[in-house]
Amino acid sequence: MSDAVLPFQPVPGVRLGTAAAGIRYQGRDDLAVLDLAPGSECAAVFTRNAFCAAPVVVARRHLAAARPRYLLINSGNANAGTGARGLADAEASCAALAELTGCRPQEVLPFSTGVIGEPLPVERLAAGLSAALGHLHEAAWPQAARAIMTTDTVPKLASRRFAVAGHTAVISGMAKGSGMIRPDMATMLAFLATDLAVEPGLLSACLKAAVDVSFNAITVDGDTSTNDACVLVATGALGNDPLDDPRTDDLLAFCAALEAVCRELATAIVRDGEGATKLVTVRVEEARDSDEARQVAYTIAHSPLVKTALFASDPNWGRILAAVGRSGVDGLDIDAVRIWLGETSIVRNGGRDPDYTEAAGRAVMAEPEILIHVALGRGSAATEVLTCDFSYDYVRINAEYRT
Amino acid sequence: MSDAVLPFQPVPGVRLGTAAAGIRYQGRDDLAVLDLAPGSECAAVFTRNAFCAAPVVVARRHLAAARPRYLLINSGNANAGTGARGLADAEASCAALAELTGCRPQEVLPFSTGVIGEPLPVERLAAGLSAALGHLHEAAWPQAARAIMTTDTVPKLASRRFAVAGHTAVISGMAKGSGMIRPDMATMLAFLATDLAVEPGLLSACLKAAVDVSFNAITVDGDTSTNDACVLVATGALGNDPLDDPRTDDLLAFCAALEAVCRELATAIVRDGEGATKLVTVRVEEARDSDEARQVAYTIAHSPLVKTALFASDPNWGRILAAVGRSGVDGLDIDAVRIWLGETSIVRNGGRDPDYTEAAGRAVMAEPEILIHVALGRGSAATEVLTCDFSYDYVRINAEYRT
Repeated sequence: MSDAVLPFQPVPGVRLGTAAAGIRYQGRDDLAVLDLAPGSECAAVFTRNAFCAAPVVVARRHLAAARPRYLLINSGNANAGTGARGLADAEASCAALAELTGCRPQEVLPFSTGVIGEPLPVERLAAGLSAALGHLHEAAWPQAARAIMTTDTVPKLASRRFAVAGHTAVISGMAKGSGMIRPDMATMLAFLATDLAVEPGLLSACLKAAVDVSFNAITVDGDTSTNDACVLVATGALGNDPLDDPRTDDLLAFCAALEAVCRELATAIVRDGEGATKLVTVRVEEARDSDEARQVAYTIAHSPLVKTALFASDPNWGRILAAVGRSGVDGLDIDAVRIWLGETSIVRNGGRDPDYTEAAGRAVMAEPEILIHVALGRGSAATEVLTCDFSYDYVRINAEYRT
Repeated sequence: MSDAVLPFQPVPGVRLGTAAAGIRYQGRDDLAVLDLAPGSECAAVFTRNAFCAAPVVVARRHLAAARPRYLLINSGNANAGTGARGLADAEASCAALAELTGCRPQEVLPFSTGVIGEPLPVERLAAGLSAALGHLHEAAWPQAARAIMTTDTVPKLASRRFAVAGHTAVISGMAKGSGMIRPDMATMLAFLATDLAVEPGLLSACLKAAVDVSFNAITVDGDTSTNDACVLVATGALGNDPLDDPRTDDLLAFCAALEAVCRELATAIVRDGEGATKLVTVRVEEARDSDEARQVAYTIAHSPLVKTALFASDPNWGRILAAVGRSGVDGLDIDAVRIWLGETSIVRNGGRDPDYTEAAGRAVMAEPEILIHVALGRGSAATEVLTCDFSYDYVRINAEYRT
C-alpha cells in the first residue's frame, strides 16, 4: 500500500495556518505555522554548512530542551550570516508565537529560507502570526507548501498510507527548494508528519535512513545551503502503542512509506531545480566503496559541461568520460570503465563502443528524464544521485534573484 | 627586467609553421608544427585526468625515449576517449611528420585539443604537414597561437627578457584554453621556449614550480581536461653554459621570467574563459595548510551561485559565506572568518560588518576585475585562485559547441 501515490492526505494531529507578512514578497503568503498536537514526537536533521543559519542553531537548541508544539516558517529571508542579531531575532520570533499561544518559547522551532545576510524583519513576522493562527486547519498543507516557496515554481507535497498495528496510518510531507541545493543532512526545508506514534530514538533513526537515500542524494548546483532542515512529526493521533522495535513489520511499513514520501519530495525539488529542463539520474556502480561511488556520481552531476550538454540534449559523452577521469578515483583502470546513456552503451575498453551511434545517443538525450549509468569495474558499491541540467534560466534566475 | 611586458619576442632555436588541414574547422589554420633546434631540452607536465587523451600517452612515452625535435599540435579534435585506435592515430601522426623531416617518430611530441570521442582524421592531418613545414619561421608564434584555438576568442602569447650569465635571454610562450579549464598539472595546452641552456632536471623543476602558481591555480568551470599539457623548451641558442645550479642568481632570473610568462598566459586563459565577463581573484589566507586554503578557494571559485552573482555584478555575499561554510573545513569557527570584496569588509563576527553598505559592495562588483578575499583565522597558509563569472554565454557556448 505504501507504493500507491495518493491525493494529498492531511495528518490527524497537525493543523497549519499561513499569512502574508510582507517579509520580502508582496501579495502572497510568506509565513506558515504548524500546530502539533500535545504529545507529538519530533525528529529533525539539519545542514552541516558551518555557516548554518540562526534558526538552525535555535531549532537545534529548542529541540534538545523541549517537545515542539509549533513549527514557525518564513520565506523571503534566510536569517543566515546575521551573527548575534540573527540569533536574537530567531528567539524573538519564537517568543512572539509562544506569547500568542501560551506555550513556552522552547516549544517553537523556527525555520527561515530566502536571501542570506539581511536582518529578519521580526516585527512584520510577529504581526503576521495572529492571522496565521486564525486560519489553522488540518487541510491547509497546500497553502503552507506555497507559503514556504522562494524560487520554487511549484509547491511540493507527497503522501502515503500504510497498514500498521491493525490501523491505516498516513504520512505526508511538504518541501521547498530549487537552488542552493546539494543537501548534506537534509534539504532546504522539508516537513513530514505521520499520525503514528513512534518512540523518539527510533523516529530519528527512521528519518536519517530515509533522508540519506532521498534528500541527501540530490543536487541542483552543488551549493549546500545554510538553512537545510528536515523535520518529521509523529502525532500519535492514530492511537497505536508507540512503535519501539526496529525489527517489526510495522516499523518496516512505516519506514517504506517514509522513504517513499521523502523520495517523491526530493525528486520534486530536482524537477523544479532552478532553470531545470531535465531530470537526470546518475547511477554509479562497481565502485570500491560507497564514498567512491558518490564521489564519481557528484563529479558528473556537478560538471557544468555535462549539465549544459544535457540542456542542449547533446549526447556529448566525452564530457561524462572526462568527469569520471577527473573525479579523483585512485588508480582507475579506464579500460574497465563502461558508460551508458539510458540503455545505450557508449563507452567500453577506454573508448567509444563500436556499436554506438550518434542517433541512439540523441534519442536518449531528447527525453525529459535521462539516466547516466557508469560502471567502474572495481568493486560492488553503488549509488544514485538525482540532478538536473544547467540552462540559460539558471543563470537568469541567479543573476536576477536579489535585484 | 623580467617584469617588463614586451611586444612578443621570438625565441632563437624555435621555428613554427601552421596549416589549414580541415580537421574540424573550415577556413582557418588548425595545425601547428614547432621545429626545435638540435640539442634543445624539453620539460613537460600533463593532465592527471585518468581518461587522459591518446596524444598525452604518446607524448609521455616519446619524451621518455628521446629528445624532441618537433611538437605537432592540432585543434578541433582532442583524440581523447578513442581507445586503442586513438593511440595508433597519435603514433601515425608522429610517424608522418618524422617521415617528412627525417627524424625518428619518438622525436615528435603530439598534442590535440577539441572534441572528445571522435576519431582523429589522420590522413587530413598528415596531408597538412607539408604546408606547415613549408612555412616554418621564427616569427610565426602569433599564427601558431591562433591555429591551436578552439572556443578561445583571442590568441594568448607572452614574452619576457632577462639578464643571465652576461647575456640577455628570452622566454616566450603561447597557450590555448577557454572551457574545461581546471588544470591539474598544466593547462589545456601551453608551449614555452627559451634560448637559454638549462640542465634537464632543473628545467623540469623550474617548470613545475611555475605551473603550480599559474596554470594550476586557475579554474573556469572545474572540469579538468583530458588533454592538458604544458611544454617548456630550452634551445640553448644563447650559447651559455647550461644552468645547473639551483642556487644561482641566473637561475632565479630565469625562474622569475618563466613564472611571469606562465602567470600572464594563465590570466589570459581565465580572461578568455567561456562566456567570461569578469576576472576574479579568490584569495584565501589564515588557513591551517595550503590544502585547506585551496579547498576553500576552489569551493568559492566553482560555486555556480557565486559565479552567477559575479555575472550580475550583484554583491550577494551570502553566497560566498555559504560556499566557505560548505567547503568542508573541519571545526571552522565562523566568528573568526572575515570576508572582503576588494578592500571592502563585508563579513566579520559571523555576520555582516556593521559598516558595510550595499553601495560599497556594488561599486566593487561593477569592476571588470574583482578580488574575493577570505581570512579563515586558523593559521598562516594562503593561496590565490583565478577564475571568472558564469554567464548566459557559458551556457550558449557549451550547449552549442558540438552542434
